Amino acid sequence: MARTAVLTPQKSDFPRWYQDVVAKAELADNGPVRGTMVIRPYGYSIWERMQAELDARIKDAGARNAYFPLFIPESYLQREAEHVEGFSPELAVVTHAGGKDLEEPVVVRPTSETIINEYLAKWVQSYRDLPLLLNQWGNVVRWELRPRVFLRTTEFLWQEGHTVHATQADAAAYARRILHETYAGFMTDVLAIPVVPGLKTPKERFAGATHTLTCEGMMRDGKALQMGTSHELGQNFARAFDIRYLDAEGERPYAWTTSWGASTRMVGGLIMTHGDDAGLRIPPRLAATQVVVTVVKAGEGVAPLAEALVAELRAAGIRVELDDRAEIAFGRRAIDWELKGIPVRVEIGPRDVTAGAVTVVRRIPGSKDATPVADVVRVVSEALDADQAALLAEATAWRDGHTVDVTSLYEAVEAASDGWARIPWSTVGEEGEARLAESAVTVRCLLRPDGSVPETEDEPDLVAVVGRSY
Amino acid sequence: MARTAVLTPQKSDFPRWYQDVVAKAELADNGPVRGTMVIRPYGYSIWERMQAELDARIKDAGARNAYFPLFIPESYLQREAEHVEGFSPELAVVTHAGGKDLEEPVVVRPTSETIINEYLAKWVQSYRDLPLLLNQWGNVVRWELRPRVFLRTTEFLWQEGHTVHATQADAAAYARRILHETYAGFMTDVLAIPVVPGLKTPKERFAGATHTLTCEGMMRDGKALQMGTSHELGQNFARAFDIRYLDAEGERPYAWTTSWGASTRMVGGLIMTHGDDAGLRIPPRLAATQVVVTVVKAGEGVAPLAEALVAELRAAGIRVELDDRAEIAFGRRAIDWELKGIPVRVEIGPRDVTAGAVTVVRRIPGSKDATPVADVVRVVSEALDADQAALLAEATAWRDGHTVDVTSLYEAVEAASDGWARIPWSTVGEEGEARLAESAVTVRCLLRPDGSVPETEDEPDLVAVVGRSY
Repeated sequence: MARTAVLTPQKSDFPRWYQDVVAKAELADNGPVRGTMVIRPYGYSIWERMQAELDARIKDAGARNAYFPLFIPESYLQREAEHVEGFSPELAVVTHAGGKDLEEPVVVRPTSETIINEYLAKWVQSYRDLPLLLNQWGNVVRWELRPRVFLRTTEFLWQEGHTVHATQADAAAYARRILHETYAGFMTDVLAIPVVPGLKTPKERFAGATHTLTCEGMMRDGKALQMGTSHELGQNFARAFDIRYLDAEGERPYAWTTSWGASTRMVGGLIMTHGDDAGLRIPPRLAATQVVVTVVKAGEGVAPLAEALVAELRAAGIRVELDDRAEIAFGRRAIDWELKGIPVRVEIGPRDVTAGAVTVVRRIPGSKDATPVADVVRVVSEALDADQAALLAEATAWRDGHTVDVTSLYEAVEAASDGWARIPWSTVGEEGEARLAESAVTVRCLLRPDGSVPETEDEPDLVAVVGRSY
Repeated sequence: MARTAVLTPQKSDFPRWYQDVVAKAELADNGPVRGTMVIRPYGYSIWERMQAELDARIKDAGARNAYFPLFIPESYLQREAEHVEGFSPELAVVTHAGGKDLEEPVVVRPTSETIINEYLAKWVQSYRDLPLLLNQWGNVVRWELRPRVFLRTTEFLWQEGHTVHATQADAAAYARRILHETYAGFMTDVLAIPVVPGLKTPKERFAGATHTLTCEGMMRDGKALQMGTSHELGQNFARAFDIRYLDAEGERPYAWTTSWGASTRMVGGLIMTHGDDAGLRIPPRLAATQVVVTVVKAGEGVAPLAEALVAELRAAGIRVELDDRAEIAFGRRAIDWELKGIPVRVEIGPRDVTAGAVTVVRRIPGSKDATPVADVVRVVSEALDADQAALLAEATAWRDGHTVDVTSLYEAVEAASDGWARIPWSTVGEEGEARLAESAVTVRCLLRPDGSVPETEDEPDLVAVVGRSY
């Protein structure tokens, strides 16, 4: 099919390609207030599927959903010194409401540790109440100087988990469970993004945390995207908000808390991990629409065959949509479904009815095969499974092919021009981090030599994964 | 089972009863900023189920979900004169962000007509794009002088639909479809609240609408609660935001828009429609947990029987939870499940294992029956269906038993002391509305003599339903 390029090619200008995909696939628009975004229906359908899949995993991890207010008294933010220092520059403040100036200005939540921990302190009485595991889906606001749709927006949608534990060990284990099973599991299995779970350095830690765990994904331009983080907060917030519990010995020690979040930023990660010069490629397990049955041209028997196939595919548990808009040129519709990254198209024209075969077009490998009508459900089912696996394999190969082992900061900066470098953490350290920062390169995470996630940055022989990032 | 009352009785102090239920059933707490609320996990699980059921109906009505920014430039609000006049007194305004005073203050959305219509104007090009049907789930802020948890809060969660149509007739038909199928259908079939759909008077209309349709529910104190509204906006917003489309004749007429919303207020309506002196009563179709299998006391064979019944009930598609916390007194747990309004409890003690029968306790009729183990699934399934119907029948009888036909404003005010009055609209009119307002009584909606919903307030022989309201 001859076509003019609708997108700037990735190789010629990756940021421009990203903007083009976001606009042409109708994912989002810029909002009127600087840094805000409008998530359009197709973009939102991707987010809704992410929410559904992640929410199920969060519930499997035992957390229950709740909702806390958007507005936080300014005084709450002050209680944890590092937290307020980290977030103050990004706050949006309501000073006027109901026709009057407010006595105490209220902050629009940038994250909800302060307000949630205030209530957790009331709800936690004894060790029997622990662990107390909550999650919240909502919007937060952080004033961004360099906004970018989905990746860094003034307002974004996310979930934030907040938990209270009796011991440091239990809190640490839970933060790790969220990192591995909930986040890395979801991102790998559903998003087909082979994220690297690791430990942040003290410099890159969440404001107020004792340890921050992260899932880092590599984008098609070699940059890293932090896709989700899980924090051990130690007793910092427990002390600031007086979260104590009656233990079995009748003492009232401070509890240990965690928090963890993943956001609409994942939509950006999805675009930049799997997208190509024809548009998005949505992993079949995530896709709200896995298959579009397309009427190429109206004709004898075409509509009944298309409808029968839609019904058969739906009965097989496949998420399918019918495109019978014969009044719109077929080529234009095909380009649009490619742009939107629908995994499989089943194309049916008048000649196919006679031949008893239709064309199955697979977006991910880019294949196109005449398929007997009787085989369509089986072929499509197998394609969806195979292409989910293919996307993950491709992204893994890309990541590994753009990661090199180096021994000096100089080489690390070089490598970061189109990927990641692995370098001994002992070679970097705080001073090395500052030097890397001069080249806009950061330590994305620390790993043990075997690739597992260290407990602290002080373990011996750690490897730092460094790169540029969003 | 002897017990001390945990709630203020409804008859002695209904508002206090409401506060007690909200606190004791762990539905919500007051937030730290005046008028805000914290929705606790059990309260949120009710809202989540409402969202899931309503979202499916909204999608059935053809609307797609999207997300627009929380922050709206102040100038947008100014564009529709009635709209800004209606909402100005309730706005929360961000004047400071990112460490600086903003050049143009931004408003925290009280509703999103202005920002959404700004984008609809860009997306609507020709008649082929119409109708354009969107919905948004999110939070909104309206500064409330007399806040009340769930019913009237400074921040609340809701969905707001926004649609664009080519003709007035199409917009009117869609606003009605949402009123009847989406809202009244959901409220009646799922919430078991026999709402009355009707037309608002001009005085009670949404700011900027040409017609407002409403679903009014009667609470157990005889007051009305507006549970959801659907607005015809005429061409008011289309003109303010320049929403025009190329029609088949090559002209560019203004479009016609609607908007419609339902909120966490429905949780308050649910509490006040079905609750009794022992707590909530959740309609089985809504309940996140329909059945709790309760271990009364540990003993030989109790746990295996409880687990087997949980598995059987779950396999039958029933939402079931196991309560095997034998360390907490059975009576305390039973009171708690009653407070929370779980429709059915299956209670199992050591003697039941021997007898081969368990106790099925139904919250809605308040019955308690020994039931052979082999019959449990059938008995519980039938109970859930029967009790869903029973709640609706009971609420309908309550509403009808507290609605009287009257012919004078004086009688209407009298009747409004514990219910609703139906009075000829010609007897009320604008002047009558002002007089009723002196006694805190309002026209809840207008109906035709046959009970159907009029198109305008000018139709002959309309009946006004009047009452006090939340």
